[in-house]
Amino acid sequence: MTLSRFEKQLNFIQEADKLKSVYRLCWLLDGSRRETDAEHSWHLALMAIIFSEYANENGCDLLKVIQMLLIHDLVEIDVGDCSRYDAQARVNKVFLEKKAADRIFGLLPEGQADKFKNLWQEYSDGKTLEARFACAIDKFQPVLHNVLNDGKPWDELKISSKQIFDASKNIADGSRPLWRYAQKIVQDIVEKGYINE
Amino acid sequence: MTLSRFEKQLNFIQEADKLKSVYRLCWLLDGSRRETDAEHSWHLALMAIIFSEYANENGCDLLKVIQMLLIHDLVEIDVGDCSRYDAQARVNKVFLEKKAADRIFGLLPEGQADKFKNLWQEYSDGKTLEARFACAIDKFQPVLHNVLNDGKPWDELKISSKQIFDASKNIADGSRPLWRYAQKIVQDIVEKGYINE
Repeated sequence: MTLSRFEKQLNFIQEADKLKSVYRLCWLLDGSRRETDAEHSWHLALMAIIFSEYANENGCDLLKVIQMLLIHDLVEIDVGDCSRYDAQARVNKVFLEKKAADRIFGLLPEGQADKFKNLWQEYSDGKTLEARFACAIDKFQPVLHNVLNDGKPWDELKISSKQIFDASKNIADGSRPLWRYAQKIVQDIVEKGYINE
Repeated sequence: MTLSRFEKQLNFIQEADKLKSVYRLCWLLDGSRRETDAEHSWHLALMAIIFSEYANENGCDLLKVIQMLLIHDLVEIDVGDCSRYDAQARVNKVFLEKKAADRIFGLLPEGQADKFKNLWQEYSDGKTLEARFACAIDKFQPVLHNVLNDGKPWDELKISSKQIFDASKNIADGSRPLWRYAQKIVQDIVEKGYINE
């Protein structure tokens, strides 16, 4: 059976629902449970709007940034959430995520499939102005969340401040003000003794 | 203490996190639990991108639609999710949601507070092209979800197909193709005997 354009779009929308069942390391700010990838993606899109004035360069296409953030984690439906601090898992990550992007965005009809594969690839490559700002937001949010939760996920994984800074430093490529703030708040909880150095 | 612009933005971002703890009547498509407002808002923004070609009129500003959908339910942090079928609750809804919008968007700094209050009000008034399309997406998604879950939330509340159509009919004001499809799939599960008529 040949699926119509609309049926393909519906299949994609239904497949996307699975992102609500992918749980991240980050906890909600009330500490009640870990957040889902769908919630995280929504929060990032909102942050991109609020913080757009802190992008390093003028002329950032906000619609493109938001679209990147809304779709960037869909590959985790197949691959799962991968800790920034799990070096072994990250070796296979690039290959597996590309395969997942082809499968998931490939559900979409002609035109949209390529558009979203390209948008996801541009985000992953992290070179354009929009990709760098979207990536900055994606890395800033867990730093903010984890600090506000007194370093809980970092404590669970025994992560040092050096590891946090190494994993987050390309926030600076998209937004220097957000990177300065991220460094400050991590340093603050180091001084409080919440980080395993 | 006078809060800086950035501190106000951070306060808003932290407050928004509470939307991940507001649960809706709709179930995830795998039936494992109800979805949160944050997940719902993400899913709507994604649907708006995919289905933008089905807006009734050309010239719909997609960035505006997406921003409306990302923020439209933030008032439910104060008010909670209100069933479309609870007539009593809906009497107070307009007043309470306006108060919530003033409080929550009022956390933002000058410029952004008014921008988001106005955007939320425009969505609520449902008159502009963008508000009508955003509203169509917001009403289409639960119909799709509930049908794919064999009418589960409607069965829980003993809702008839007439009530479903009455509560959803302004999908047509934003997107006639989505309204035609919504009517068809509700009719299909009526015929299967899943709706309490």
